[in-house]
Amino acid sequence: MSSAVKIFDTTLRDGTQGEGISLSVEDKLKIAQKLDELGVHYIEGGWPGSNNKDIEFFERAKQLSLKQAKITAFGSTRRKDTDPADDVNLNKILESGVSVATIFGKSWDFHVHKALQTSLEENLAMIYDSVFYLKSKGLEVIYDAEHFFDGYKQNQAYAMQTIQKAAEAGADWVVLCDTNGGSMPSEITRIVTDVAAQVNCPIGIHAHNDCELAVANSIAAVHAGARQVQGTMNGFGERCGNANLCSILPNLQLKLSYTCISPEQMTQLTNTARYVSEIANVHMPLNQPYVGSAAFAHKGGIHVSAILRHAKTYEHLTPELVGNKQRVLVSELAGQSNLVFKAQELNLDLDMQNAQTKQVIQEIKDLEHQGYQFEGADASLELLLRKASGQVEDVFEVKSFKVSIERHRDQAVRSEAIVKLAVKNEEVYTVASGNGPVNALDNALRKALIDFYPDIQRMHLSDYKVRVIDEKDATAAKVRVLVESSDFENTWSTVGVSENVIEASWQALVDSLRYALTGKTAVTPNKEREAERSGLLNH
Amino acid sequence: MSSAVKIFDTTLRDGTQGEGISLSVEDKLKIAQKLDELGVHYIEGGWPGSNNKDIEFFERAKQLSLKQAKITAFGSTRRKDTDPADDVNLNKILESGVSVATIFGKSWDFHVHKALQTSLEENLAMIYDSVFYLKSKGLEVIYDAEHFFDGYKQNQAYAMQTIQKAAEAGADWVVLCDTNGGSMPSEITRIVTDVAAQVNCPIGIHAHNDCELAVANSIAAVHAGARQVQGTMNGFGERCGNANLCSILPNLQLKLSYTCISPEQMTQLTNTARYVSEIANVHMPLNQPYVGSAAFAHKGGIHVSAILRHAKTYEHLTPELVGNKQRVLVSELAGQSNLVFKAQELNLDLDMQNAQTKQVIQEIKDLEHQGYQFEGADASLELLLRKASGQVEDVFEVKSFKVSIERHRDQAVRSEAIVKLAVKNEEVYTVASGNGPVNALDNALRKALIDFYPDIQRMHLSDYKVRVIDEKDATAAKVRVLVESSDFENTWSTVGVSENVIEASWQALVDSLRYALTGKTAVTPNKEREAERSGLLNH
Repeated sequence: MSSAVKIFDTTLRDGTQGEGISLSVEDKLKIAQKLDELGVHYIEGGWPGSNNKDIEFFERAKQLSLKQAKITAFGSTRRKDTDPADDVNLNKILESGVSVATIFGKSWDFHVHKALQTSLEENLAMIYDSVFYLKSKGLEVIYDAEHFFDGYKQNQAYAMQTIQKAAEAGADWVVLCDTNGGSMPSEITRIVTDVAAQVNCPIGIHAHNDCELAVANSIAAVHAGARQVQGTMNGFGERCGNANLCSILPNLQLKLSYTCISPEQMTQLTNTARYVSEIANVHMPLNQPYVGSAAFAHKGGIHVSAILRHAKTYEHLTPELVGNKQRVLVSELAGQSNLVFKAQELNLDLDMQNAQTKQVIQEIKDLEHQGYQFEGADASLELLLRKASGQVEDVFEVKSFKVSIERHRDQAVRSEAIVKLAVKNEEVYTVASGNGPVNALDNALRKALIDFYPDIQRMHLSDYKVRVIDEKDATAAKVRVLVESSDFENTWSTVGVSENVIEASWQALVDSLRYALTGKTAVTPNKEREAERSGLLNH
Repeated sequence: MSSAVKIFDTTLRDGTQGEGISLSVEDKLKIAQKLDELGVHYIEGGWPGSNNKDIEFFERAKQLSLKQAKITAFGSTRRKDTDPADDVNLNKILESGVSVATIFGKSWDFHVHKALQTSLEENLAMIYDSVFYLKSKGLEVIYDAEHFFDGYKQNQAYAMQTIQKAAEAGADWVVLCDTNGGSMPSEITRIVTDVAAQVNCPIGIHAHNDCELAVANSIAAVHAGARQVQGTMNGFGERCGNANLCSILPNLQLKLSYTCISPEQMTQLTNTARYVSEIANVHMPLNQPYVGSAAFAHKGGIHVSAILRHAKTYEHLTPELVGNKQRVLVSELAGQSNLVFKAQELNLDLDMQNAQTKQVIQEIKDLEHQGYQFEGADASLELLLRKASGQVEDVFEVKSFKVSIERHRDQAVRSEAIVKLAVKNEEVYTVASGNGPVNALDNALRKALIDFYPDIQRMHLSDYKVRVIDEKDATAAKVRVLVESSDFENTWSTVGVSENVIEASWQALVDSLRYALTGKTAVTPNKEREAERSGLLNH
């Protein structure tokens, strides 16, 4: 049997069923382009029979110049008691102009009776006619057998008949769906093996993650003979998500020697996963397998240098194969050797005999002792290491800030921030309001800097976390604020610690902007705009 | 073979290796109590040989009254060329007072040479001596075979010898660790089967999630004969995390008919998972299998009532079995019966026909929709339920508040709060400074109330947590503040939600004081002190 496995990405269709995930047509086109570069074989773009946004996507997708991926449109089998040629849904697939149709039908007798409210025979005819009609129009047809595993467990003979009908009608693929996500790998193995022995058509698997087994179930199906895997980037999807292609791809190809995409394409995996997260505006978990920023992170300690020397025995995979990289987390247990290693990663020279270097190293240790936690704040650490190596840039200097928050009965809360900075030897003095004090500070800072550094409009804060370090005396205790910021390519994290939540937030905000602006050249601001900005102080 | 599987929770030890996870001794004690109620068999509390915080945990854990869970301490085998009786690390385990020791040793010849820098024979002796020593002191001994699967793949004979030594020395369990998380389920099945056939000792599995297969690998090991599963709540842990017990427990017991905990305990799974997330201040993904809030969420639509009528065919499991609930994303159907149940717990009568009751129930639903999460804030919920039942007391009324935070170069930050309340029909107007804005507000509030309610000096804030609810636009997004307060007898938690971190903190602070003062009788303040207090406004 061939070791080639086809990858069917449904991020744009099933992925958008996930809570909090919504993609514009523009977003979908960008993601489709990126998925093609990654090398997936099928991109399911949407359901043209269900909404106009999807129709627009298929129209505009014709302009994409894809290297290899085929765009496919989703839809259901024909309605009961209808001629397929008169079926609106099937005709919408044809009108979408795709060369591949993906249609789903019922496998479970219970759903035929209750959801379709028709006979078992009519359902078989609906499957046969729909596949046959689309094949007669020259399309490649993928048949998704909805609820297949549950149906098989309840009425094996009928479930088998449904997919036999699809195969007889000429389906190019029969895809077995674990729609409710409740199957165990042992069941998948048994059932796919049985199907592969009886059905004369290539088989695919479509798994959901309700038991945290979607990746395992997809692999089990491939072992049992499936040669197409359906899933989504980062496992987006309804309830607990679809099978995560970002884990399935490296598992199949790098661990189990199946062939899915080229090795060069595999090095784009991390980058693609992060891009899709960014476009969907969904926070990617640090600990996501293979592509998360903690996936190859080592906690520092006395043994860190030994770990790095023999990385292969402490890492299950070379991270570069999937485009990720090793990271050393600098935690309180960490020693000087970690900092040196970290500096090397950044191409900074630390001369440990140098007085300033020694002083900054001591400063980092003192900060850790106070409660700074650099393992979640790489950008703040990088700024300090730059200082230690003498390669620091003072992109701006803080003179003062002031925030006030006020609420009177039955009125909304008001937050106002005033910021005084020195940028390129000019004093800049701005005021801004915001939804809260941190937002007001962020707005005032940006207002002060945007004329010098127009690029900052590309970046935004993507996460904000606060934690009390010592809980003994909570509101008088130190708090640690972590701020995560992103632009279109990168994400970076900064930290602030203070007894004052606003002061800690301010430190993290200032670090975030300093980090973003390091290496950028300030422009001389337009004098008119500057006058306008200063004028705001009079309000 | 018995169907009973023992659950070994290492949230407090391996879980804290996760990036961004840090637990105080107090946090660990709370989690241990909750894990015992869930019914896990072993709770690994820490590594007493590695740090003083863990030593303190074991000391204080002696005061916990656990129903069934055994607390276990972690450590390594003895150092090379040492008598176990002289080994500091082993003796720290004994000194911790636990009845179960969990020690790890090397299985992989490569690591013996490179990390331990000793001979293969000495490593075998280290394992044998360490297990034998702890057994001779009367402890139950769990032997964790670190890097076992990688070691077995490289040098099968030697890896087998290491665990045979542990078994010969009397280990109660040999636990096979996939330390790097890189093994596939098919490998786990093959290797555990081989070990089970050769080693005369109960076997356990310790998996990591680097390939998104930790749950599948744990199950595969149980199928192959393992009868102990090590993992963490929510899959916390280094890199991509440890095996997630929140998925393994229901998979083993509800899907595969193994016996782990009682059915009643299983209904505490969701609640425990969320509690641990709250305490660790880690955002629980909506889509987490079994316990996430989207795990049984149905997107509303025309078929939603049909879905609900035949829920069993659209859900892989009845959510109540794991203490979760079905959610319909469009119309909020859930909640009311839970609130009635909660009110009964508090001896409050809710008359669901009463207009005010209906209105407050609607208010609670709206608040949940906004992002309030009452699971971690029982006191805030109780205040609302008291309002719903008409048994509310207005201990004080807020007229206005104002906070300002200011810093000038080289000076310390200053925080000042002004509060205007009505207490017993008197207007009270106070100002106070603090270490931060929340502390200043707390001080001003207390100053306003202490003459009426002298008891409030007995209470203090014991924890303060902030979380961004919607990460899309971080500093302009809603934040949720949880405040925990204590007096000498009780601890209670309150919540506030706002786009403004100060406003949210204020809500939680006010709720905390309202809760504490409910049922207390206000005294008439001494006029002299009152005059003095008012005078403070002139400063």
